[in-house]
Amino acid sequence: MNKIEIEQASAASRARILRLLRIHGRLARIDLARLIGLSPATVSSITADLMKDGLVREVPGEEGQAGEGERARGRPKVLIDLVADAACVIAAKISINEIQLALGDFTGAVRAVETMHLGTREIAAEALIERLGEAIADFRARLTRGRGPCLGVGMALQGIVGKSSVLTWSPAFSLRDLPLVDPVAARVGLPVILINDANAIALAIHDRPAYAEIANLGVVMLGAGVGMGLILGGQLYTATSGAAAEFGHTKYHQGGPLCMCGKRGCIESYLADYAIHRDASTLFDLPGGEVQHPSEDQMRSIVARADQGDPRAVELYSQIGRVLGFGLGNLIALVSPDLVIVTGPGVRAWRHIESRMRRGLSDAVIGTLLANTRIEPMSWDEDLVFRGAFGQVLDRQPG
Amino acid sequence: MNKIEIEQASAASRARILRLLRIHGRLARIDLARLIGLSPATVSSITADLMKDGLVREVPGEEGQAGEGERARGRPKVLIDLVADAACVIAAKISINEIQLALGDFTGAVRAVETMHLGTREIAAEALIERLGEAIADFRARLTRGRGPCLGVGMALQGIVGKSSVLTWSPAFSLRDLPLVDPVAARVGLPVILINDANAIALAIHDRPAYAEIANLGVVMLGAGVGMGLILGGQLYTATSGAAAEFGHTKYHQGGPLCMCGKRGCIESYLADYAIHRDASTLFDLPGGEVQHPSEDQMRSIVARADQGDPRAVELYSQIGRVLGFGLGNLIALVSPDLVIVTGPGVRAWRHIESRMRRGLSDAVIGTLLANTRIEPMSWDEDLVFRGAFGQVLDRQPG
Repeated sequence: MNKIEIEQASAASRARILRLLRIHGRLARIDLARLIGLSPATVSSITADLMKDGLVREVPGEEGQAGEGERARGRPKVLIDLVADAACVIAAKISINEIQLALGDFTGAVRAVETMHLGTREIAAEALIERLGEAIADFRARLTRGRGPCLGVGMALQGIVGKSSVLTWSPAFSLRDLPLVDPVAARVGLPVILINDANAIALAIHDRPAYAEIANLGVVMLGAGVGMGLILGGQLYTATSGAAAEFGHTKYHQGGPLCMCGKRGCIESYLADYAIHRDASTLFDLPGGEVQHPSEDQMRSIVARADQGDPRAVELYSQIGRVLGFGLGNLIALVSPDLVIVTGPGVRAWRHIESRMRRGLSDAVIGTLLANTRIEPMSWDEDLVFRGAFGQVLDRQPG
Repeated sequence: MNKIEIEQASAASRARILRLLRIHGRLARIDLARLIGLSPATVSSITADLMKDGLVREVPGEEGQAGEGERARGRPKVLIDLVADAACVIAAKISINEIQLALGDFTGAVRAVETMHLGTREIAAEALIERLGEAIADFRARLTRGRGPCLGVGMALQGIVGKSSVLTWSPAFSLRDLPLVDPVAARVGLPVILINDANAIALAIHDRPAYAEIANLGVVMLGAGVGMGLILGGQLYTATSGAAAEFGHTKYHQGGPLCMCGKRGCIESYLADYAIHRDASTLFDLPGGEVQHPSEDQMRSIVARADQGDPRAVELYSQIGRVLGFGLGNLIALVSPDLVIVTGPGVRAWRHIESRMRRGLSDAVIGTLLANTRIEPMSWDEDLVFRGAFGQVLDRQPG
């Protein structure tokens, strides 16, 4: 290798070590070496550099946490950990009429979230870019002090993101084919990436050590819309166009309810928050509020009716389970993932959905095929869209 | 490289050259070198060995067929071609109550086909293996003389083939989880592979130079069943289990007609030959014949009614188009292939299916997504199942 190649290889190893620490948390050097496939001596040399740069630090290991090799040699237990405030990153999650900005630290943890309302559906492109740029610049000025350099902005939203980072279509906008990335980057003076929200979640989950080895993983996000991130052969599948895994726009019934995409009978038009709220409004006198993007409180008040045993609410969630089972049946027939994780705020009603969903699945698909796919809910304690967007920005850093 | 590594590399290059000649037909050495990424000298050395072994031969090039480099140097136009009778291969295509055996030559061309009837649906495992082994041995003894050594048998069938080459499920059998490969190989004394019929077709099509560069390709086979082979990222996608792309068992309507898989409303239960014949029997007094596996003549007689403008037949095919469009809509939403090829004997009625299929698609899926996928029929002049099965056996030869 010549000097440039050696520098490139070293930069790549630095980046991989930072990524491993972000995914696994603090690790002994010997375990880092095993995970990355380099000699302990090389890893020690790289971590020494990273320490000098203030990106990682040594921390005392607790009982049972040090690497096996280190224990065996009776050395003191020392682990390497990321310095959380070595750098920071911003995520912008754009939903219908709402923008959430989140601050992430160098470990990828969420440190602050702010929500602003913006009438996204009727906004013009220039106004959108100006408001978004202003909001991000203001958020950065107020919140990143003392948190190291800001590495970039990960924008995530429901909709179709083309390969060239153009926002092709989103239910949040009437705008189409919007080149969001470069104009926002120019305004905020930071690198900007754009990612579909469900893809961000799928990447955040596939990053976890427990799921990293699953070759074919589908992650369904139930919430404002119904999204999916699809990992095939260990990689995010984005088709040639950038737009794939539009699970929410597979069909339940051609003559079904109107979907935000403008077509009828998409499973999103039964399963998304706006759809559940629309159907619940038909059954109950609901208190006023947002109907296109109902709040978590609004949605929880519908779940509460089912919790209390109201048969109309129980039946409503049962119908939702049937539609979800039908959709998952098509996914399993076509792609047969090893695991499907159902997550997003919509899992709030899982207990009322699951049994009818599983019955729907076994009505639809032969057992031989069903047996290849596990289906698991994942509670929505943390907004994994932020995690995924942070991760995409942090992964692009040279270290 | 040590001696063993050099031999392995050389064997791999021999195999790749044979494969390129099978796919492209006769080629100049200079074009072979370009396609394979080796020096012309290395290619000349390997082709000399292959000539000595009687696997390839030189043939005079016609005008415009020699490689550009050779023309430029004013050399005589000499092409390298496979020796068709250097070796042969057998394919066994197993359908409901029917087995077809085909003989392929070293170029992968079909040289003979024989059809035998066998009550597959009620047969026991031992009897099936015995009859299949006998039939293949007899076919080989009668037909392969003078065609070089027989390299192996490619068995193709409708149904689910597991990763370990176990026949998991097929509508042709009531048997389940049948380890067909090893027992048949032991009986016939040849290597045997087992492949899903639609996967065989997809591989045969993706082998063609015109389609080889398409990263994400769906091939729908309409015929005795409705199958699909899915190429994703340039590779056949078979999930972890071996069973994927069961397009025929995605759903049109949960309360729909009974499918051979035992569930209701699979799109196969509207689109497969048995389904079209069942529905046509409801409308017309059809002549007697097979109902589970109707013949090509039986199926053509139904198409003929639509050709003649019988409004009931026209409406039947229009309904079929709607269901196909609906199914393709789900495929496009989930996988968004660059190209979907619709082929198999069922394309016989394409002219009566297509317009309603396209209308169904645009009813179902937003234009932004539809724009990423071309849909094309491919006429079923040749049984590509044989081509694909031959190719799988020939590709496994060390050359």
